[in-house]
Amino acid sequence: MSAVVSLNPRTGAVRQLLGEEASPNDVSATAGAAAAAAPELQRLGRTGRASMLRLMAEGLEADAAGIVEVADAETALGAPRLRGELGRTTYQLRLFADALDEGSYVEATIEHPRETALGPQPDLRRMLVPLGPVAVFGSSNFPLAFSVGGGDTASALAAGCPVVVKAHPSHPATSERTYAVLAKAASAAGAPDGAIGLVHGHHAGAILVQRGEITAVAFTGSQRGGRALLDLVNARPDPIPFYGELGSVNPLVVSPGAARTRAAGIGTGLAQALTQGAGQFCTKPGLAFVPAGEDGDRLCAELAHRLTELAEPLVVANQGIRDAYFDQVAALSRHQDVACLVDAVRPGGAGFAVAPHVLSVGTTQLDQSLLEEVFGPYGLIVRYGTEDDLLAALRLLEPALAGAVHSEADEVEFTRAAFTALAERAGRILWNSYPPGMAVTWATQHGAGWPAATAPHTSVGVTAVRRFLRPVCWQDVPPELLPEELREDNVAGIPRRVDGKLSVGY
Amino acid sequence: MSAVVSLNPRTGAVRQLLGEEASPNDVSATAGAAAAAAPELQRLGRTGRASMLRLMAEGLEADAAGIVEVADAETALGAPRLRGELGRTTYQLRLFADALDEGSYVEATIEHPRETALGPQPDLRRMLVPLGPVAVFGSSNFPLAFSVGGGDTASALAAGCPVVVKAHPSHPATSERTYAVLAKAASAAGAPDGAIGLVHGHHAGAILVQRGEITAVAFTGSQRGGRALLDLVNARPDPIPFYGELGSVNPLVVSPGAARTRAAGIGTGLAQALTQGAGQFCTKPGLAFVPAGEDGDRLCAELAHRLTELAEPLVVANQGIRDAYFDQVAALSRHQDVACLVDAVRPGGAGFAVAPHVLSVGTTQLDQSLLEEVFGPYGLIVRYGTEDDLLAALRLLEPALAGAVHSEADEVEFTRAAFTALAERAGRILWNSYPPGMAVTWATQHGAGWPAATAPHTSVGVTAVRRFLRPVCWQDVPPELLPEELREDNVAGIPRRVDGKLSVGY
Repeated sequence: MSAVVSLNPRTGAVRQLLGEEASPNDVSATAGAAAAAAPELQRLGRTGRASMLRLMAEGLEADAAGIVEVADAETALGAPRLRGELGRTTYQLRLFADALDEGSYVEATIEHPRETALGPQPDLRRMLVPLGPVAVFGSSNFPLAFSVGGGDTASALAAGCPVVVKAHPSHPATSERTYAVLAKAASAAGAPDGAIGLVHGHHAGAILVQRGEITAVAFTGSQRGGRALLDLVNARPDPIPFYGELGSVNPLVVSPGAARTRAAGIGTGLAQALTQGAGQFCTKPGLAFVPAGEDGDRLCAELAHRLTELAEPLVVANQGIRDAYFDQVAALSRHQDVACLVDAVRPGGAGFAVAPHVLSVGTTQLDQSLLEEVFGPYGLIVRYGTEDDLLAALRLLEPALAGAVHSEADEVEFTRAAFTALAERAGRILWNSYPPGMAVTWATQHGAGWPAATAPHTSVGVTAVRRFLRPVCWQDVPPELLPEELREDNVAGIPRRVDGKLSVGY
Repeated sequence: MSAVVSLNPRTGAVRQLLGEEASPNDVSATAGAAAAAAPELQRLGRTGRASMLRLMAEGLEADAAGIVEVADAETALGAPRLRGELGRTTYQLRLFADALDEGSYVEATIEHPRETALGPQPDLRRMLVPLGPVAVFGSSNFPLAFSVGGGDTASALAAGCPVVVKAHPSHPATSERTYAVLAKAASAAGAPDGAIGLVHGHHAGAILVQRGEITAVAFTGSQRGGRALLDLVNARPDPIPFYGELGSVNPLVVSPGAARTRAAGIGTGLAQALTQGAGQFCTKPGLAFVPAGEDGDRLCAELAHRLTELAEPLVVANQGIRDAYFDQVAALSRHQDVACLVDAVRPGGAGFAVAPHVLSVGTTQLDQSLLEEVFGPYGLIVRYGTEDDLLAALRLLEPALAGAVHSEADEVEFTRAAFTALAERAGRILWNSYPPGMAVTWATQHGAGWPAATAPHTSVGVTAVRRFLRPVCWQDVPPELLPEELREDNVAGIPRRVDGKLSVGY
């Protein structure tokens, strides 16, 4: 068994040892505790779980300074970004609490008995109930908002599912510190022990997804890691839902008009989008389509200028990401048709610093080998001639988390054609903005077809809760044995569908 | 390549040859046509697709006599049942048309730009859009309602997804006849060629689920068949959603009070539920928990009496089902702890006739080897002593499509305890009724955890449409480039969520 080690990515040095990784017995005990907690967490009800989520948010805020300090020491993401990320984490915990109060997410549906063309129809009442214990895999790039207390945990707990988090090895101390806050808040809210658990270790994660107690898996990470876990899940005697958000190559299209009027602005914006969080955003627009010709040249020149004058070093989360970045960039640079726009100078030292790298190619030279995701501050510029060239190139792309178009208001037909091609494969479509910086709302979508994600659901925003629920229908069941949400009186005032008609209830 | 053969299950004789099974090239062409049809079917819109579904229902009604005649000749299910099943098929096509008109299924959600604790939030608009071409596998036991024009096809077409049906080999002529009606109606409604396609052949089905054009699979059938297809889907470079309804062993609990007051009625009801459609219902209550003692004895005696006096022979769909039935029954009968209550006499002749078989065992002797699904008129009676014995036995069960309790109104605590145990594993909970005969409504749930189904969704009822949709979010996109459902004016008057608040719109 290996030790759990917290590193300083700025130097590569060990900053703390946190004991041993979880043994198979540890995983078994944690999963067992989650299973034991499941009925009680469900009985806590929507109101009780809303209180729990709000206490968790308060707890994180109370320990904000300490959490940010540890997270910065472990991730080098910087205090301002991490304070923002903590704010996002508490905001989304409270948003799920609000959704619990509102109650529409259970999809309460009542059909009263009646005569139909097919004969008498019984009394039927349906709502969504918790699936059971969920395994959540923390991400490398968001130590707070997509980790122990992140969106997957918040949505699973909201649904009424106990959570076992597999901590990401790039920030074990942050994970432990966050976990302590959440566990204390859960207990204060009257949630059972086992409502939230934490394990460390690669092998522990593999064991976890195979445990019979686990009823769903939520994962944010690489395509390779996601595929390996998915294969383990599918080899179970009882395969379970695997909700993986695996990242993607996100296209950004610049129209001729936008290049003409805003070359410098877009070059600057793109430089920022490629380097934000050291390029460790799954929504990074890593593939920019820029018109051939002078306007596009100006855009590329500005992009190159902004990237080469970066003041701060870019430090990625761990050695694996750093090494993969340099290996992929080197391989892509050897492609016979690409030109180098910005060269990644390999910084010295033992830490996990990297430098931006941007390549450029024409639409006709674009092939699948150039369309792999590179995690880090890398981008590929694709220069297109005609609109048809552009659309043909867009049709080569695999599903992506986000697709953006930068165009002028009077380029309606161009924009429509680009949006149509993008909407066939992207989960989020943006106009004149950059995909990193997704808001957490009822309208959020973070997901798309494979390889961006493994299931047609979102992993961010209120509707992420749907992943951890299953429908149950009660037929001719007496009122006193029905869940409160399905009784005639609707005391909680939640939205329901009664005899086919939706009514808001509040 | 093999011929497509229509058999008479009453005699086993060949009644018709329908050409060759689909070659890999045929499958490729059909899937390609579906992919080409996808954008046009989406553009047909909710109104256009509602018209298409209604024309399909009208077409099936116009050809009802012919369809029922062919289906009875191929399945031996009898004209009354098949007329009822055709009624169910047209009813559900129209119900999905109504759902398209109503429009809530797209989950239209609008967040206007605003200031939040996390900074300015952009304009975000989200709705569900079609996934793309869907492969639908027809079932053996419902040649109409779960086959070419059944619930999977209706829900996928409603969603806006072209469908390629893999016909079940037990009723190829019915499949062809139904398909002709549906294709004609689709064309009359202005749907593109390729909106619905049909292939025959086991190998063709395996190729179909691996085609890149196919974006989801819907399957109703055996656990073995479902698992094999699921493994093919998971081996794709781009795994896609697989919605399998694989059947289950459905528990039915008789309380002491119900056994005391209604032994004969429940014995009769159970006999009917075990033999309906020759026991070929995935919701057949194949596992009945009956109190030990005299009341339970009377129930069992009535059940045995009703089953041995059956007037009509029970004919299953094909030779494979017949042979598996006798093999499983023979193996289960050899279990050292079971007693035989009703003996399956193996009928003579070359057809696919079977006879009912019921075994009996005590709760303490119940083990996993006795808990496998047997397709056909088989049931296992489990005699229990105390309520604790019963609940311990219920906790051994795997997820099931349906669980029923027969109890008296004053046995509230017994009923509650049984329902709680059942609701943890069953998709539908019934009181004092029998699960076959599920209504198609907004409140229907047909599904549960593995092995009952492969995903936490229903395969029957309006919400089945959710399986074939994916969310897309439009960020800061100008109104004229938004789908109609997401524009400010809500001309269609559909339910929407605006700034977090649900409004019905109609």
